[in-house]
Order: sequence, then structure tokens, then C-alpha cells
Amino acid sequence: MSEFIPTFATVCNAAETLKGHAAKTPLLEAPALNELLGCRLFLKAEMLQKTGSFKFRGAFNAISKLTEMQKENGVFAYSSGNHAQGIALAAKMMGVNATILMPEDTPAIKIENTKGYGAKVLNYDRYTESREEIGEAICRKENLTLIKPYDNKNVISGQGTVGLEIIAQLAELGLKADCIAAPCGGGGLLSGISLAVGTNSPSTEIFAAEPEHFDDTARSLASGERVGNTGDHKSLCDAIMTPMPGEITFPILSAIKARGLVVTESEVAEAVRAAYHHFKIIIEPGGAVALAAFLSRKTEIKGKVIVAVGSGGNIDPALFARLLQSK
Amino acid sequence: MSEFIPTFATVCNAAETLKGHAAKTPLLEAPALNELLGCRLFLKAEMLQKTGSFKFRGAFNAISKLTEMQKENGVFAYSSGNHAQGIALAAKMMGVNATILMPEDTPAIKIENTKGYGAKVLNYDRYTESREEIGEAICRKENLTLIKPYDNKNVISGQGTVGLEIIAQLAELGLKADCIAAPCGGGGLLSGISLAVGTNSPSTEIFAAEPEHFDDTARSLASGERVGNTGDHKSLCDAIMTPMPGEITFPILSAIKARGLVVTESEVAEAVRAAYHHFKIIIEPGGAVALAAFLSRKTEIKGKVIVAVGSGGNIDPALFARLLQSK
Repeated sequence: MSEFIPTFATVCNAAETLKGHAAKTPLLEAPALNELLGCRLFLKAEMLQKTGSFKFRGAFNAISKLTEMQKENGVFAYSSGNHAQGIALAAKMMGVNATILMPEDTPAIKIENTKGYGAKVLNYDRYTESREEIGEAICRKENLTLIKPYDNKNVISGQGTVGLEIIAQLAELGLKADCIAAPCGGGGLLSGISLAVGTNSPSTEIFAAEPEHFDDTARSLASGERVGNTGDHKSLCDAIMTPMPGEITFPILSAIKARGLVVTESEVAEAVRAAYHHFKIIIEPGGAVALAAFLSRKTEIKGKVIVAVGSGGNIDPALFARLLQSK
Repeated sequence: MSEFIPTFATVCNAAETLKGHAAKTPLLEAPALNELLGCRLFLKAEMLQKTGSFKFRGAFNAISKLTEMQKENGVFAYSSGNHAQGIALAAKMMGVNATILMPEDTPAIKIENTKGYGAKVLNYDRYTESREEIGEAICRKENLTLIKPYDNKNVISGQGTVGLEIIAQLAELGLKADCIAAPCGGGGLLSGISLAVGTNSPSTEIFAAEPEHFDDTARSLASGERVGNTGDHKSLCDAIMTPMPGEITFPILSAIKARGLVVTESEVAEAVRAAYHHFKIIIEPGGAVALAAFLSRKTEIKGKVIVAVGSGGNIDPALFARLLQSK
């Protein structure tokens, strides 16, 4: 089992693998927003990563670590959109064929981009069908290697490089983070960050940000065991509508004593607008939940150095325009 | 006269002054866009600079270089909005009072932000009144030091640090720019970049991008002497609707053999949308003209390494939403 568990060392190894391939994204700061909040808030701008989300990091790292035979046969992924784009571009860069299964109600921009990077896209209904079952059948039949979106050591290690960069970028400013929050679906990003931060900056508090009705991680962390979401709720936050915390990710989050912060849809919309006004960047709703949690003060931030990971910027223009002008 | 002329050395000195105060903005690249264009296009993301535009650089450098007495008396600036915000924040950071004269039809977001940084804002009608005359009277009466938006050695030197960063960031990738284009109003940004690039990378071609009806720099460079704009045209590109090239800036652009590229309003709107889709950033129309010039292939770009400076991101949400959804 231990060969499947990512560690600080595998995150550092991923950073080597990604050098020259993934962008080192900036840590943005807005003086006017700091003054408003009475703290120093940094936004780690992963929408500026290749494919518009952090998912490229884990995807590139995971495909890099396949055998030559696996690369030749091709890879398979299921994804609500950002992992899909990450896998599609990383596969293309390494000359590997990619097949991606995406929910029918995925934002059009994510489907188009995934096809644009040359992947073969299949659809399913996320409310009635199981992506795991469909995926397993396709992989067996076509001899493809499944790259899971979060329960994969090399994916988690790749995402963890976000954490290494945050620590290094703050150190350049002579700072250390009091709190880091990241959007949390299956927990790949946050568990990777936890591995990076736990060793380098053990006093930093780690928060999993989630939208209401999809607060499985918050409840799991509070209760000490993995619990799932119930009901057939919908959400603006398509990127992080996962059913329950991952098998590999949850023990990592639990070990570092991460806590959950849950935000409403209107708090998410407010964060999308704040990112527009203060940071001049496009953030998608699922990528904005950590920023939303800090802006709506779900935890004490006064006087602190806090980092919100903005995990992606793939949002259809019509929805973005609507959120920008609502309120 | 020579004490008013910026040089490569004054740009390097400005870089020292700005260290730790101005952001080093990223040089963004989008694989899908590169493939579409058949070149390597980099966007220098100055909307991610403090106050949402490059103007903070020149403002901070210029105020830093005032005497203690001048700082105590306060500074004055006239500006369509981005220089205003740059001066307002830089002044605030140094404990200096700032008074700013802005056109009545300035986007609301720029006026609000300028006031938000603590400056005193006065208005005038840009179509019937002279900002120079109004400004001179106020400065005399209140003993303020005028910081011109472009015809100022220390402002130009500050803006030139954009050029130093571009060269260094490309060098990290083992690249050299074939062409650099920047939005051009009075020419402060582009002349500063020219000083930085002329010494370090003399083979790089320099382009001044302008909107139609405000192509004074293009015509001046073609004819060899400063000519102005005529008529009472309006433009989406509020940031760069200047009457003619600067006295200090034009000889610098002329010496480096810069050329003009002129774009239409619809090409500008297309560039705003491309920045949204490919770079996930907010670009204001006046800040998008250089990107627009490359996207609409106003000069040969095939196979080249090209850099468009995206100079600012201060755009009212309603206009941004409209541009995003037009076409």
C-alpha cells in the first residue's frame, strides 16, 4: 500500500518533473483589499496555470511517471472538466493519446478546450450514471491507463507543488502563512499542499473550502471518518461537486488537522466579483470558494497572513457576465 | 535639457527603487493560442500590477525622487484614470498628499479607486477644457508638484522596468523577443521599454499599438515629426486617447525606429475576449491594443517570439460583460 502514498519527497520530485513545463503562478496581493480586510491576503493564481487550472500539474506528473508501454497504449480520465483539460494537454505534450469521460452538463468551454487539446471526449449523466463503472469498462476494453483525478499518488504530488511555491513565494517577502485555504472536491490539491506545508511550515493552519451541500470534507474532518454528500443538489461550483473525500487524500488532511469552511452560492459570486475588481483575474465559481471563505470571514483573519488558492478560471462567458452584474 | 532625458541607466535605477514595492508581473503564455497563431506569443500582464496597471511603476519612481519639501507640499496629476490610481497609491505609500484632475467621462471604477487610495479628485471636460491649463493654475495656487503622465524622466524610467522584466523573463526561457508591442498613448510606457530593450536586445522590433482615430504616434513615426489627432472621435480605449506623442517620449521612439500598428474597435473587443479565454485575465480596451494588433496580424508574426504588453485591467463590469458577449 505504501507505494501508493504520496509524501513530501514525492512532491519535491514532482516539482523537478514539472520544471520548464508547468507555469510558476504568481501570488497576487491587492493593497485596497488588504486594507478592507485588515490582513494580508494572497491569492495563488492557478487560473494562470496552463489549461487555466492547477490540474495540469498533477496530470503532467502522473503521465510522466507511466511506463513507455502505458504511454503507447494511451490514458483515460473522468473529470468534470479541469482534470480533463490538464490530462489532454499533458498527454499531447508527451505524444500520448487521451480519452476523457465528462458529465453532459460540463460547461461548454471545458469540453471545447479538452477537445481542442486533441483528446477524445465521451459523455455521461453525472446524476444517474457511475463514471467509475463506465471508466473501468473502457479501460479494460481499450487497454488504457486510468488516471484518477485525486486518488493517485502522482496526481496528488503534482498538485502539492502549489504548496511548495506558496511557501517559497512568501519566504521571498519574509513572510510565513498563518492559514492556507484551497477549494476541495476530492482533496487532491489540498492534500498535496498539506504535504508541502506540513514539513516546511508546520504552524500553518490548513482549510478545505467547499460549497454548501457539497461539504463532505468539512463533515468528514469533523467526524474523523469519510462521509458522503446526499440529495441531488446542484451548484455553481461544478469543479468540486465530488461525492466524498478520497481514500488516499482524506488520511493526509486528517493527519494535518485540516478544518472545513463552507460557503453559500452568493458568497461564491461575491468572491468572483472581488477577484475581478481587486486582482483583475477570471476565477470560476469552484475555484473561488477559498477566497469566498476568507472574504466572508468563516475563520478569523484579522492581522494574519492568509493564502487563498484560486484553483481555476474556466467559466463560460455568459455565466461570468451574469455573476459580474448580479447583486 | 539632458537632465530631463531618461536613459538605460535611469531605467535600471528605477528598477532598484521599485524593488519590494511594485509587483514583478508574470509573462503569460497560452499553448492553444500559440498553436492557433503559429508563433510564441507572450502577454506581459501589467493588469496584475498594483492598482491594475503599469502606471504604478512610473508614479512610485517619480514621487520617490522628489525632495522632502516637495513631498510635504503634495503632488498633482492629471490622468484619464490609470496614472491617477498609480499616483494615488504611490503617494499614499509614501505619506504624500495627492490631488488628481480626471475627465468627467472617466470609467467610474477608475474614479472610485483613485478616491479609495485617498487622493482628492477634481473633474474636467476632456472635450472642451485643457487639463494642462487647469493643472498649472492649481499647482501654482496650492504649491503642488505636477507629475506628468508621460513627459517626465522618472515616470518614463519607472515604466521602462516593464522592459527589463520582459527581457529577463524571456532569458530564463532561453528566448529573445523578435517583436515587442505596447499600447501607446503619450508614449511613456513604450519609450521606457525602448530604453530597456535598445541596450539589451537591439535586434528586437518595437511597435506602438493604437486605436483608430488616435494613431498620432503611428503617423508621427512614419513622417518623422510629431503630429496630433484631429476630430472629436470617441473610443473604447479611454486609457490612450492622448492628443499627440510626448516631447520627451517621441525622440526615443523615433531613435529606436519604432513603428505604429493601428487597430479597430472590433479588433480590440476580440482581444479582450481572447485574454479572457486564453489567459484568464481582465484586460481593459486601451490595454488590449497591442494584443489586438498581433491577433489581427498587423505585422508578420509567424514563427516568431512576440510580446504584447497588456497594460491595464481597469474596466467597468458592465462594459466588460458586454464585450465578452458581443459577436
